Amino acid sequence: MKDKCVIGVDIGGTHMRCALMDRKGTVLAFRKDRSRSDEGPEALTRRLVQQCRDLLADGGLSNARLGAVGLGVAGKLDTASGTILFSPNLPSLAGFPLAVRVQEALQVPVAMENDANVFGLGEAWLGKARNVSNWIGVTLGTGVGGCFFANGRLWQGDRLGFSGEIGHMIVDPQGPECACGQKGCLEAHASATALVQGVRQAQKEAVPLSDLLQEALRRDQLTAHTIYRAARGGDPVARRLFARMGWALAVALSNLFTFLGISTAVIGGGVSASWDQFAPAMLDYFQQVPSMLDPQSIHVHRTELEDRASIYGAASLAWQTVDRR
Amino acid sequence: MKDKCVIGVDIGGTHMRCALMDRKGTVLAFRKDRSRSDEGPEALTRRLVQQCRDLLADGGLSNARLGAVGLGVAGKLDTASGTILFSPNLPSLAGFPLAVRVQEALQVPVAMENDANVFGLGEAWLGKARNVSNWIGVTLGTGVGGCFFANGRLWQGDRLGFSGEIGHMIVDPQGPECACGQKGCLEAHASATALVQGVRQAQKEAVPLSDLLQEALRRDQLTAHTIYRAARGGDPVARRLFARMGWALAVALSNLFTFLGISTAVIGGGVSASWDQFAPAMLDYFQQVPSMLDPQSIHVHRTELEDRASIYGAASLAWQTVDRR
Repeated sequence: MKDKCVIGVDIGGTHMRCALMDRKGTVLAFRKDRSRSDEGPEALTRRLVQQCRDLLADGGLSNARLGAVGLGVAGKLDTASGTILFSPNLPSLAGFPLAVRVQEALQVPVAMENDANVFGLGEAWLGKARNVSNWIGVTLGTGVGGCFFANGRLWQGDRLGFSGEIGHMIVDPQGPECACGQKGCLEAHASATALVQGVRQAQKEAVPLSDLLQEALRRDQLTAHTIYRAARGGDPVARRLFARMGWALAVALSNLFTFLGISTAVIGGGVSASWDQFAPAMLDYFQQVPSMLDPQSIHVHRTELEDRASIYGAASLAWQTVDRR
Repeated sequence: MKDKCVIGVDIGGTHMRCALMDRKGTVLAFRKDRSRSDEGPEALTRRLVQQCRDLLADGGLSNARLGAVGLGVAGKLDTASGTILFSPNLPSLAGFPLAVRVQEALQVPVAMENDANVFGLGEAWLGKARNVSNWIGVTLGTGVGGCFFANGRLWQGDRLGFSGEIGHMIVDPQGPECACGQKGCLEAHASATALVQGVRQAQKEAVPLSDLLQEALRRDQLTAHTIYRAARGGDPVARRLFARMGWALAVALSNLFTFLGISTAVIGGGVSASWDQFAPAMLDYFQQVPSMLDPQSIHVHRTELEDRASIYGAASLAWQTVDRR
């Protein structure tokens, strides 16, 4: 078992990133390719299998050295059957048993988890949550995902097909509408989508916007990153949206800390790069509001693994599969 | 071990209720006495120890048959050292090592938990949560308490001195002020205190009230029970307050169900007797709002053990102590 390696794969809407890793998390080889949902699931599977073979060749390893593959995929998954039920980023994969097909092709065990859970597994293995028993993971991206680790293990709840969905906790019943149909979800305050919609709403209400935002709106190229740059440049609408995001994160986290009697969270995902714009409002809330919590004991970290967290997590999932056999 | 018995004690602000029980939860003897915080902790300890001895005599059992004693006490406890840190109902017991003193006097192990946790232990042992792995307990009384059972065990979090504090989760940041200093806590919507303050607020705003409520206000005898009777009689203010209570319970529970990926809760405490007035609004919310949850899979039960849940839970705590030795 000692000389086995694993492959961790993070499959996003535009790219798949694959890394060959040893037991310590050392990256022996790395590859990145487009994921191209439009080609259909069979082509994506072939591309993914080829990447894994290329990685082994890159690392100078025979196929026999591969212990397992771990896949991280955004969406609703049936992990037991290795099937993607629904993926917003890869619509053509709905109902497709991706893990099973990769397993058949490579003849090694393949495990699959959703993107928020592999983020958590990565942070628990090599990130800010190393040696933390009980903690909450949050991923800020197009949407807001989450996970919960209890007694050092990824919490799966009653295996209802979802768990850790912090993005659809309601933080303000009078808040903005969420894509899910509820009002005032964390996701409607703290996602890239919420930032973009916030600027569009301000435009509709004829609130003055900085040139940067006006130009992006005119070109129909408004992104969370543009709004971040606008906030750094002092745009009051952008600043208010990031403050609202920090506030909403703090409400959701302090509610969970209060109920669970815990005090640690790790925040990742692409939008966590805007930390300097939303964290002050979040940390301010923790200092002032929660009645049960000692502000000194609250530890809300920004990921240090950044976009590698999910690949590490997918590899960690693969190692768990190796160890279970 | 087979022929051992335990004593479960529920210590409230006005009464202590003690039961001698066998392994199956059969009550062999029961006693009730006033708790009288004003006498001081030493007198209360003597009274409690005497009750335990009387119970053994009532059951015709020698002292050697007593395996352990479990205490349920409202307040913040240091369960490891058996000390009451703060109890709103028994202020004179602050800092008093009640469990240690009872243990010294009776020469058997004595375990102590807060009231919401012993409620949960009772429901898990002999109530609606038997054979349920993951569930949330809620106690509706002067305040709102809670507990969480994960994988069949009482969740203790990071042992920060609190856990399961569902009453201080914020359900509406624009909601009424809570005694804890926050705004819009579940407790500020769903406790006996919230009901009474809701009626007082309506009086202040000159909203018309039924004779029953007006009379109770005039005599300064307004209680949650009076408001319940008023709601049953059709008083619109009382009805609105119970509907708000049901709505707030549903927001807090569905937020937790969404994050934890679970779907079961048990509601107890004195105010749960008003179930017919608040449950319709709560169940209606579950049918309509939560985006992740299948309404058919949600199971929110009313306690069937009523005020016996805590005594059973205290006895269950005692049995756990016996089994650990």
